[in-house]
Amino acid sequence: MASMKLGEGLGARLNFFAPSPDGEWRILSVNPVTGPSLPSTDLTHFSRTTVTPPTTAESSWILRGVTSNTRYVTNEERDALNAASEGLGRPQATRAACIPIRKMAAWWALSQQERRDIFETQSHHTANSMPYLPAIARQLHHCRDLGDTDFDFVTWFEYAPEDADAFEELVAKLRASPEWKYVDREVDIRLERV
Amino acid sequence: MASMKLGEGLGARLNFFAPSPDGEWRILSVNPVTGPSLPSTDLTHFSRTTVTPPTTAESSWILRGVTSNTRYVTNEERDALNAASEGLGRPQATRAACIPIRKMAAWWALSQQERRDIFETQSHHTANSMPYLPAIARQLHHCRDLGDTDFDFVTWFEYAPEDADAFEELVAKLRASPEWKYVDREVDIRLERV
Repeated sequence: MASMKLGEGLGARLNFFAPSPDGEWRILSVNPVTGPSLPSTDLTHFSRTTVTPPTTAESSWILRGVTSNTRYVTNEERDALNAASEGLGRPQATRAACIPIRKMAAWWALSQQERRDIFETQSHHTANSMPYLPAIARQLHHCRDLGDTDFDFVTWFEYAPEDADAFEELVAKLRASPEWKYVDREVDIRLERV
Repeated sequence: MASMKLGEGLGARLNFFAPSPDGEWRILSVNPVTGPSLPSTDLTHFSRTTVTPPTTAESSWILRGVTSNTRYVTNEERDALNAASEGLGRPQATRAACIPIRKMAAWWALSQQERRDIFETQSHHTANSMPYLPAIARQLHHCRDLGDTDFDFVTWFEYAPEDADAFEELVAKLRASPEWKYVDREVDIRLERV
């Protein structure tokens, strides 16, 4: 109990995201979407791992997030997503996007019902994402309650190069939705598998 | 970013709960409700603080939890709770209960809608708690996604000695509810203000 360190009980639910000398992804771009970018790095590679990635003086930041229970989908939406989705790590999915996001305090002050209304009834977050399955594999990581970065979520997407246009379309739809009015910091990191 | 330690960005949202030599509460009892108890301690006092409480070799455990956004209440329930509640730290509220709880994996696999249905429609968690306000002040802390203890929540209650019977009644109602069928570990720590 007392000797357990943070995250020790999470197993593969806790993921780290960082520039890393021996990362399995090559960094294509790091672009601020809303608010400041992440500090620039001399490293050319990037890791998503369940153990702390090796970092150097040139790699001055690390993001962390936990996969967790669903928050907004109904039973039907959850089942439809599960049936249509494919997992991470597919050989053909050689592109990835790591997009850390923060939502403003006004979002977190809303009730569940108000957040669900904006998320799905107004923004069609799940409905708009469904047509992009299984091409775009997606994993959400929560970090708001970890309190060690400026972000609430780290979103991770993997897709094949031929689905890159579809991915841009999906991201544009999400960013144009009412839900995104509550996003006050977002950085878009694009990656290519080594 | 990189130099931020876990919890540094949480401020007063992160709370620690532990036996502590100079704690502001005296331990009255530590009783397992479901599953194993916490390790026994030679310390007689207890702290709830926003900084790590002093511990000794005799105090071998520490719980940690984060206050967070609401998950299950509707707008109306939230507003009714806020209107009826009083805060922690009232001079007359010299009794406290610290009750760490874990819910089984089956609970976390349910959709939001299924969890809300069990929480309120079947168990009347909020409706049953309302009559005990403002006598019983309550604060929920989340720790499932911190991964450093065996618990998902640390619940904290404060009340005056004359409301102790009402508190037992509330706790008994909650434990008899369908929601509690999903609780697979619970320890009940009772405290008295020094």
